[in-house]
Amino acid sequence: MIIRQLFERESSTYTYLLGDEASREAVLIDPVDTELDLYLRLLSELDLRLVAALDTHVHADHITALGALRERTACTTMVGFAGEVDCASEGLEEGKIIRVGGIAIDVLYTPGHTDDSFCFLVQDGATRYLFSGDTLLIRGTGRTDFQNGDPAQLYASLHRKLLLLPDDTWVYPAHDYKGWTVSTIGEEKRTNPRLEPATEAAFIELMNNLDLPNPKMMDVAVPANRACGRQAEGRG
Amino acid sequence: MIIRQLFERESSTYTYLLGDEASREAVLIDPVDTELDLYLRLLSELDLRLVAALDTHVHADHITALGALRERTACTTMVGFAGEVDCASEGLEEGKIIRVGGIAIDVLYTPGHTDDSFCFLVQDGATRYLFSGDTLLIRGTGRTDFQNGDPAQLYASLHRKLLLLPDDTWVYPAHDYKGWTVSTIGEEKRTNPRLEPATEAAFIELMNNLDLPNPKMMDVAVPANRACGRQAEGRG
Repeated sequence: MIIRQLFERESSTYTYLLGDEASREAVLIDPVDTELDLYLRLLSELDLRLVAALDTHVHADHITALGALRERTACTTMVGFAGEVDCASEGLEEGKIIRVGGIAIDVLYTPGHTDDSFCFLVQDGATRYLFSGDTLLIRGTGRTDFQNGDPAQLYASLHRKLLLLPDDTWVYPAHDYKGWTVSTIGEEKRTNPRLEPATEAAFIELMNNLDLPNPKMMDVAVPANRACGRQAEGRG
Repeated sequence: MIIRQLFERESSTYTYLLGDEASREAVLIDPVDTELDLYLRLLSELDLRLVAALDTHVHADHITALGALRERTACTTMVGFAGEVDCASEGLEEGKIIRVGGIAIDVLYTPGHTDDSFCFLVQDGATRYLFSGDTLLIRGTGRTDFQNGDPAQLYASLHRKLLLLPDDTWVYPAHDYKGWTVSTIGEEKRTNPRLEPATEAAFIELMNNLDLPNPKMMDVAVPANRACGRQAEGRG
């Protein structure tokens, strides 16, 4: 499997390109609209054909490239609740398996950061990759104070789902703000301060008192992302 | 082998942490001074002990953390021409092998971007990693118009050394300005515009007409890096 991590600097977003070497089919996870030309260039240079583009959730800090990618490549677009995102081809749900050539992407429903948050698990030989969206970050987690976030749900998504994966599972998040690129489940169990609270109640207390400012693009990004990246006075 | 890629956003620098799982010894390649605390944190969290810190060359766009790391960890510091960098413990030279626990780092002399440019080649099982500094970038190369840069030397370093490595060798550069993180020798041979000129003369012509502005930190960074990261009115 071909795997490439790509960084969008304005929102510190990581986008992932996965490609199947035999069929040359590819998928993008969490693509950002400003990087569209770079994705098309890389796909072409690697001789890959984009068949699907996925968002782990409706992002509040950048505008998705899903709509633009579908226009340019006719790929399938998938987000959590397709009913609320009118241009997504398909919705995501727990247990769904997305096939991209020989790559099988297991869909995990992991609400908490938002109520439409999903993670993607891919196995390549003995190697497991978790694309953890904003649910599990390197030494952090997504916040839970907007877009139907819920700290109790996040606690369950972490402790009763993601942390049950084998310790050597690679964790590839949707963001990192300190320049780190990857972690593992075992490493996060040992070092992530958000996984330290011993009880659900203590975690909820922690999350409800973070007092974070809103993302600077939130008022633009959330409505635009519900239209697959089309802004009110945009290209749509 | 543990390998981590770390990104410093101001100068778009990639720093690499390599760690030997058995001995827990580690090395940093191209560390940036502003990230010192993050390196020490990551080393501690991964239970690694820093024994060496290397620069691929004297950088013009950021200040090295070599001096500060040596003060904090007593690691060995190595740069190309140690005679010109008075606080480096050791110089680098073609053919040298740096041992960090069970990791063997082959030193390749690759002048051209600067006259003190080196690359590092590491083999882990069947996997080869080239830490290519500014000599070979993803779809680019370092410039050759200052610090004793020389396009003819760069042409030789690329075509008579790096491109002779197997096509599946991973290429991890010191910078990327478009958010891409890794490539391979085969991919660069196929796609890198700087590798297109068919003759040395055409490459020299290309490199001599790039007409690039100087890096914004050049006047500060080069003298500071010759003092291992100590600025005139700095912490030295």
